[in-house]
Amino acid sequence: MTESTATAIGMSASLDKTITELDLERFADVSLDRNPVHFDEAYAQTTRFGGRIAHGMIAAGLISAVIGTKLPGPGAVYLGQTLQFKRPVRIGDTLRATATVKAIREDKPIVTLETIVENQAGEVVLTGEATVLLPG
Amino acid sequence: MTESTATAIGMSASLDKTITELDLERFADVSLDRNPVHFDEAYAQTTRFGGRIAHGMIAAGLISAVIGTKLPGPGAVYLGQTLQFKRPVRIGDTLRATATVKAIREDKPIVTLETIVENQAGEVVLTGEATVLLPG
Amino acid sequence: MTESTATAIGMSASLDKTITELDLERFADVSLDRNPVHFDEAYAQTTRFGGRIAHGMIAAGLISAVIGTKLPGPGAVYLGQTLQFKRPVRIGDTLRATATVKAIREDKPIVTLETIVENQAGEVVLTGEATVLLPG
Amino acid sequence: MTESTATAIGMSASLDKTITELDLERFADVSLDRNPVHFDEAYAQTTRFGGRIAHGMIAAGLISAVIGTKLPGPGAVYLGQTLQFKRPVRIGDTLRATATVKAIREDKPIVTLETIVENQAGEVVLTGEATVLLPG
Repeated sequence: MTESTATAIGMSASLDKTITELDLERFADVSLDRNPVHFDEAYAQTTRFGGRIAHGMIAAGLISAVIGTKLPGPGAVYLGQTLQFKRPVRIGDTLRATATVKAIREDKPIVTLETIVENQAGEVVLTGEATVLLPG
Repeated sequence: MTESTATAIGMSASLDKTITELDLERFADVSLDRNPVHFDEAYAQTTRFGGRIAHGMIAAGLISAVIGTKLPGPGAVYLGQTLQFKRPVRIGDTLRATATVKAIREDKPIVTLETIVENQAGEVVLTGEATVLLPG
Repeated sequence: MTESTATAIGMSASLDKTITELDLERFADVSLDRNPVHFDEAYAQTTRFGGRIAHGMIAAGLISAVIGTKLPGPGAVYLGQTLQFKRPVRIGDTLRATATVKAIREDKPIVTLETIVENQAGEVVLTGEATVLLPG
Repeated sequence: MTESTATAIGMSASLDKTITELDLERFADVSLDRNPVHFDEAYAQTTRFGGRIAHGMIAAGLISAVIGTKLPGPGAVYLGQTLQFKRPVRIGDTLRATATVKAIREDKPIVTLETIVENQAGEVVLTGEATVLLPG
């Protein structure tokens, strides 16, 4: 799809990324989120996760990339996002973020997209909804 | 506050950060979000924002830092977050993210926190709610 | 489906209802919501809706009925719901509320359902997500 | 407050209602939600609630009444609502629904309100956020 394509219900776009150690370091530099569950393996093994996990907001960042670069893409204004964290992300996981248009307001160019992030096993790690104001 | 403090309604914690050019670069590396409104000043001036803006998810990352490191802090499980983006963040803005406990379920250790990010002028740039499962 | 059926990703359930004048009256008695856009045709014609509309929460009530009686059904605990109102509902519209299981937490029996309400023309009037704790 | 008052951050409005048997009957007629936890005391005693509870959406209806009749009041358009159900409501409980303006978008007349419903003991039964488009 391209920016010039009109947004319609059912349209979908995706993006894939493998999560690395460096991603966690960079995200912690940006966010100041140095929760030891992300960086201290010994500590993380004592938690219910049984080992280090990635920041949930890294998966959310992939959604923002789909919204901001693909569907609807540049020019749209991100009004809101809901996030339900479903499953931990591990270093080395390959995530696929997908946004699908679910509804368009009749009276204003505001679109709701279903947003979902899955891992390489097809398991949902993050689900939610984006609300976006279309350009023009 | 410390991890050992019991979580109670009305408790609050904050974190401040000035957003830099480098933060945008790092966040784009992590998320793949290279929407030109974040990186191309000439393009950004043609948008309603009138110039480059930071990724909204960078402000959301500060919320995750408060939740994951301060209130409730390590050991809590981040179940969900709602985000309402209210106002653009510019490079050089100093953001304060604050989480405040609003409600605790009676039957399960699930806490709802009001989460808000303000800029140096005291303007709200992001608001929402976090849902967190307490440790233990 | 029955209560004893295990909940699985992709499962779906629906419920249909035609909205009547009496529904608006009853809902206003329950909620105290006597906004004139619901009851005063002359006033409502001056608004962007161009005539009376049903309360948006009536459509939300149909979602609660699907969750509470069909999927997952009795015994489940309704933890949360997001609602995006997309289009007005008119007296005489026949609504179909549908819930579809999108994700199940790996560590707890918490399910996320996509929830959508459509009118007789197949237009989305309400969309959102339900979060539900399964029984047992 | 009146409709003509400009909406400003920090403004708040409330509404009180005692929930009756008749409210549950009416809400079930409107929504078709006849989950036995609301109507069958013997069944309800076997659940974690230990007895009949009101529909959570009845409390949500009180929020819609505050939004639609008080703050911002008639003429506003209800765009969205998040709901976190925190505690059961019993027949005979007196609920107070309160909405408080938390943020106003700088570029559009879209307002976010914190919405909370408490019972007569001051316990939070429902929390969330409303998103509303102001008139004019």
